[in-house]
Amino acid sequence: MGQTNQFGDMPVDDFRRYGYEIVDRLAEYFERIEGFPVLSQVEPDSVKSALPAAAPEHGESFDAVLDDVDDIILPAVTHWNHPNFHGLFSTSTSSVGVFAEMFAAAFDMKAMLWRTAPASTELEDVVLDWLRQMTGLPEVFEGVIYDTASVSTMHAIAAARERADPSSRKLGLSGRKDAPQMRVYVSEHVHSSIDKSVITLGLGLESLRKIATNDRFEMIAEKLEEAIAEDVVAGFLPICVIPTIGTTSTTSIDPVAEVADICEKHRIWMHVDAAYAGSAAILPELQPLFDGWERADSIVMNPHKWFFTPFDLSVLYCRDLDDLKKAFSLVPEYLKTDDAAVKNGMDYGIQLGRRFRSLKLWFVMRYFGREGLIGRIREHCRLARLFASWVSESSDWELAAPVPFALVCFRAKAADVDSANALNEEIMRRINSSGKAYISHTKLNGLITLRISVGSIRVEERHIEKVWRLLNEDLAAARGD
Amino acid sequence: MGQTNQFGDMPVDDFRRYGYEIVDRLAEYFERIEGFPVLSQVEPDSVKSALPAAAPEHGESFDAVLDDVDDIILPAVTHWNHPNFHGLFSTSTSSVGVFAEMFAAAFDMKAMLWRTAPASTELEDVVLDWLRQMTGLPEVFEGVIYDTASVSTMHAIAAARERADPSSRKLGLSGRKDAPQMRVYVSEHVHSSIDKSVITLGLGLESLRKIATNDRFEMIAEKLEEAIAEDVVAGFLPICVIPTIGTTSTTSIDPVAEVADICEKHRIWMHVDAAYAGSAAILPELQPLFDGWERADSIVMNPHKWFFTPFDLSVLYCRDLDDLKKAFSLVPEYLKTDDAAVKNGMDYGIQLGRRFRSLKLWFVMRYFGREGLIGRIREHCRLARLFASWVSESSDWELAAPVPFALVCFRAKAADVDSANALNEEIMRRINSSGKAYISHTKLNGLITLRISVGSIRVEERHIEKVWRLLNEDLAAARGD
Repeated sequence: MGQTNQFGDMPVDDFRRYGYEIVDRLAEYFERIEGFPVLSQVEPDSVKSALPAAAPEHGESFDAVLDDVDDIILPAVTHWNHPNFHGLFSTSTSSVGVFAEMFAAAFDMKAMLWRTAPASTELEDVVLDWLRQMTGLPEVFEGVIYDTASVSTMHAIAAARERADPSSRKLGLSGRKDAPQMRVYVSEHVHSSIDKSVITLGLGLESLRKIATNDRFEMIAEKLEEAIAEDVVAGFLPICVIPTIGTTSTTSIDPVAEVADICEKHRIWMHVDAAYAGSAAILPELQPLFDGWERADSIVMNPHKWFFTPFDLSVLYCRDLDDLKKAFSLVPEYLKTDDAAVKNGMDYGIQLGRRFRSLKLWFVMRYFGREGLIGRIREHCRLARLFASWVSESSDWELAAPVPFALVCFRAKAADVDSANALNEEIMRRINSSGKAYISHTKLNGLITLRISVGSIRVEERHIEKVWRLLNEDLAAARGD
Repeated sequence: MGQTNQFGDMPVDDFRRYGYEIVDRLAEYFERIEGFPVLSQVEPDSVKSALPAAAPEHGESFDAVLDDVDDIILPAVTHWNHPNFHGLFSTSTSSVGVFAEMFAAAFDMKAMLWRTAPASTELEDVVLDWLRQMTGLPEVFEGVIYDTASVSTMHAIAAARERADPSSRKLGLSGRKDAPQMRVYVSEHVHSSIDKSVITLGLGLESLRKIATNDRFEMIAEKLEEAIAEDVVAGFLPICVIPTIGTTSTTSIDPVAEVADICEKHRIWMHVDAAYAGSAAILPELQPLFDGWERADSIVMNPHKWFFTPFDLSVLYCRDLDDLKKAFSLVPEYLKTDDAAVKNGMDYGIQLGRRFRSLKLWFVMRYFGREGLIGRIREHCRLARLFASWVSESSDWELAAPVPFALVCFRAKAADVDSANALNEEIMRRINSSGKAYISHTKLNGLITLRISVGSIRVEERHIEKVWRLLNEDLAAARGD
């Protein structure tokens, strides 16, 4: 029975009963996860056409809602938790992450002021310091949690803009005779979120100079140096360089230490995009790959990508958090408090309210421990290298990029570019439409390249063997063998 | 026992057991909600000082984590769910909202592409159309879900900027001889998020012209017309006017229909900020307060404020969603798909991944039904008017603004401005430090003004009676009676 004509919330006994019911359904979901197609097999409009055109007039029984979750929603879920989700970056939640979201949703705090959410405000500082230590960053770095890397990076570039031109906060960028065009430097393999950031910030797409990369898809530091010198002569104002550790296409690693030298020389903000690979910095043996990031002005890393934390939770570390505060702090009367000594989350960005996101990172770090997190991420890297070794040893396939973390770029060989592209697209189409695994692609030097990301908390060697077997079957089928 | 040296997630039996345990704890939390102090009574650093300086090396038992939630986190929670939370805007979750977050966290989909989250992508369209109908908006409006109103509004202004100067996406704003300074028009009572938006977008704080308001705190349309005319003559480019329906200080209502006339005449984007009050548009008797918003280019409303939906869920309705797409769409190779006909969430904003937020709005609309939602919001408005009537009838207090929705602005009377301010601040300090209720303040014409927001799903007449009794007790105590 629904809630029509009553006030208040669901009776607590019903909350308890349906809560158990949902826990049971989710437990079953996790148990059955390998039985679902990875990529949802529904056709477009399946959800829309199954639902009424308007909201119900009277409240419905929650049993009816749960039935529709099973019948309409679940078939239209793409199962990011499936251990054979290898597309994009393979990310996954953990059980304790789900638990944290239950508390966060129930408490429903908005952390704009310390006093409106002391637990959230303080736990954020605690867990970000724990993560800082785990990833080997120096003590000077302090962090802020945002929703996504896109938003973290936009805040970093905004802080860089503020530092380069403190008048812009007040005067803006347009119509000023003294305001030169700003420039932001990235490699050709930069993430599209940075393109969106420069649009948003009013810098424009042309402010983004994409620096050429070498045959390992790494930014060529000399080219960066040349571009900056050229721009300075031409009257542009370089405000930010964004080297990536773990690019999205290939997880290539820009030469951060060399970039840091250049940024120091020209006094340019260095923002390191480690949204994907940052989690791997907890592995002592991979620390050398992060060489130089300790000299950054800001760093983004996403625990929601490869740290078993449910989406969304992105961390922006800053050398001086006041840079962000200078760019964004504004306190209207209705938010003024006498808590002078405390940190108020709203001072560090666009969003005023903030969810209690730190709780899930705390649950994850405590439940798995540093050792448990290292173990899992190390295993993912081992599985990726194992897969890469099969590719290397096969005469049908070739590796397309180095494998520093847990992503393998590869392709089926063919006589020429066109037939290779057609072949690899066909293999991808087959494997994805089968529902048995999900892989994605990129384009490297004009060649369609397949990508296998290994990052699910549930992935085991048998899943990697499975996708390798499927790939070879689909290759044979695509060739018409 | 922790998870050290194991791979994978928590065993499913443990997920089930701890899941039940958390449901029990949350049920108890909701049952006991009125026994907690509304505003957390902890001192700053209570959470920080109670936690170790570094993450555990080995995984811990989840029982230990749950104990710490009780001992360390819970005392530092400000209870937004408490029916006597009357500060800022009183917002609250509902049980079914928590249930939706359990599913969303477990599925952990990222809705950048239709194919990575068909259920999320399609349900978003469905529930936003349901909400559009409920709030009486014409069919032309389509919506997008973002996290917060700050982000929704920033996207709206970005779309306005794009329409006014399509070159800005490519060329940016600075260093261009042809790019005039842009202007955005708001009332003096505009929300601070709009200040942050113009900073972020590179328009600068000076781009914001704050139009004077009348004695009901409503934007004076003639002043707007004058300001625009003046700016056009001076060479500025007016790009956006943002009237508010339900300002944050007093819930005043700008004259949207008159503003719409001015915007049409000058071809300026009209963005309506109904972040708080939008929910009240479902009440047929309040529809006249929204007169003119159907002529907007974009409208923001926040179901996480007054629609029993856990934070965060903000909706941006656009007359033409392509305006947003033009501003933000970019498709890198690794996100290209052959799903030509489908909508991909990433095309409509900065964020690439998006949480499955539509699920909680769907649960809320189905469980309560249109009638149940109307009943609750209508009751809040009735309780606010009841409280306002007590204020009006008392010789000790005065109303400070009209009460169109469910917020009452009022103050204790005193001989002069200084003593009135001191008196009201003291009353607020007393009531908030008691933990028995939480109220907040604003400043109107130099006078500290207390605000009582009525919006909790659990609020009843007895809670309003209680806060009125407390206020009168604190007034007597503050006067030294």
